[in-house]
Amino acid sequence: MPTYKLTYFPNKGLAEPIRFLFNYANIDFVDVRLKDDEWLQLKPSTLFGQIPILEVDGKKINQSTAICRYLAKQFGLTGKNDWENLEIDATVDTINDLRIMISTTHRETNPEVKAQKDKAAGIAIPFFMNRLDEQVSVNGGFFVGGKLTWVDIVFAALLDTLNFRAGFDIIEKKENLKKLVEFVFKQPNIKIWLLKRPRTDY
Amino acid sequence: MPTYKLTYFPNKGLAEPIRFLFNYANIDFVDVRLKDDEWLQLKPSTLFGQIPILEVDGKKINQSTAICRYLAKQFGLTGKNDWENLEIDATVDTINDLRIMISTTHRETNPEVKAQKDKAAGIAIPFFMNRLDEQVSVNGGFFVGGKLTWVDIVFAALLDTLNFRAGFDIIEKKENLKKLVEFVFKQPNIKIWLLKRPRTDY
Repeated sequence: MPTYKLTYFPNKGLAEPIRFLFNYANIDFVDVRLKDDEWLQLKPSTLFGQIPILEVDGKKINQSTAICRYLAKQFGLTGKNDWENLEIDATVDTINDLRIMISTTHRETNPEVKAQKDKAAGIAIPFFMNRLDEQVSVNGGFFVGGKLTWVDIVFAALLDTLNFRAGFDIIEKKENLKKLVEFVFKQPNIKIWLLKRPRTDY
Repeated sequence: MPTYKLTYFPNKGLAEPIRFLFNYANIDFVDVRLKDDEWLQLKPSTLFGQIPILEVDGKKINQSTAICRYLAKQFGLTGKNDWENLEIDATVDTINDLRIMISTTHRETNPEVKAQKDKAAGIAIPFFMNRLDEQVSVNGGFFVGGKLTWVDIVFAALLDTLNFRAGFDIIEKKENLKKLVEFVFKQPNIKIWLLKRPRTDY
């Protein structure tokens, strides 16, 4: 079994899907959480100035989605064939599009541009959420293939951060997505993680 | 052999990496290029209001990077093992980060915000390009594993669009990246595609 070390900020953010995957599979990992000054010290030595970074037996890699896909393969959380893996990858990238839209809107400091972005997000978020909810509805309660795969876990793990940055519960009245998130949260090892993980807003 | 149909705008953009992969592997595909009014008519019936869309024997899927990964698997352009595939995926997502930064800067209409974004991109683009050039240098002339994989083809195919939106040649003086792009461009089937593809600026 390789040794795993994950480095990120103290919050959930882009690292939480990785932490969920380790916990779901009951695999030990070192969960390094950097304060801002520690990150500024480390940053110049990183590959692309970005975290999360995962170390596998000392070998380092960045990019959270790529890391999740790799771990999903090791932990048996991929699709049943190439087409299902394509559907999983496409859904993860759609969720990433949604995440980028929500966080760039949240972070915008120019009041005029922020008003425009808020307006666009007010149309786009419900559109995305309706389509994602429908996708879960037609796939037997999961995003792809009628069984739990890593995209379900990624979505559930990102939800607190998405909601915090959007400023509202993005799955409110989305009954299929709500049930899916509940299903992930009640998996035995995830249940333990939700109780023991550090308290953060996002 | 499945039948493939690709739908996008008339330009290169997000579809060109997919077109490069089909051409490299010498696989026939229908290359549908929509005018703006045709797209507006089609848009409501698409999954997430986005193109490119690929149809494989009539089954539709969106998200360009997911599509490239799937085709790379079919055409033998993946890494030699799971770790190499992780490195390929991480590099593709780094290139996507670069692409998103370049295009959001290019598209910004508010003059004040545009000035800020131009300034940030003026630091970030050279940083990214230096790191990517170094990565190719230490990996025997390719992004990953000392041999041609789909991330090399994706980067070469995106370059015209990246350069057009950045407003300058982003690989100028990046000798390793230049050699890699030349290597992709001189592959026999890519050479033919470069001669026969429709002329567009980006």
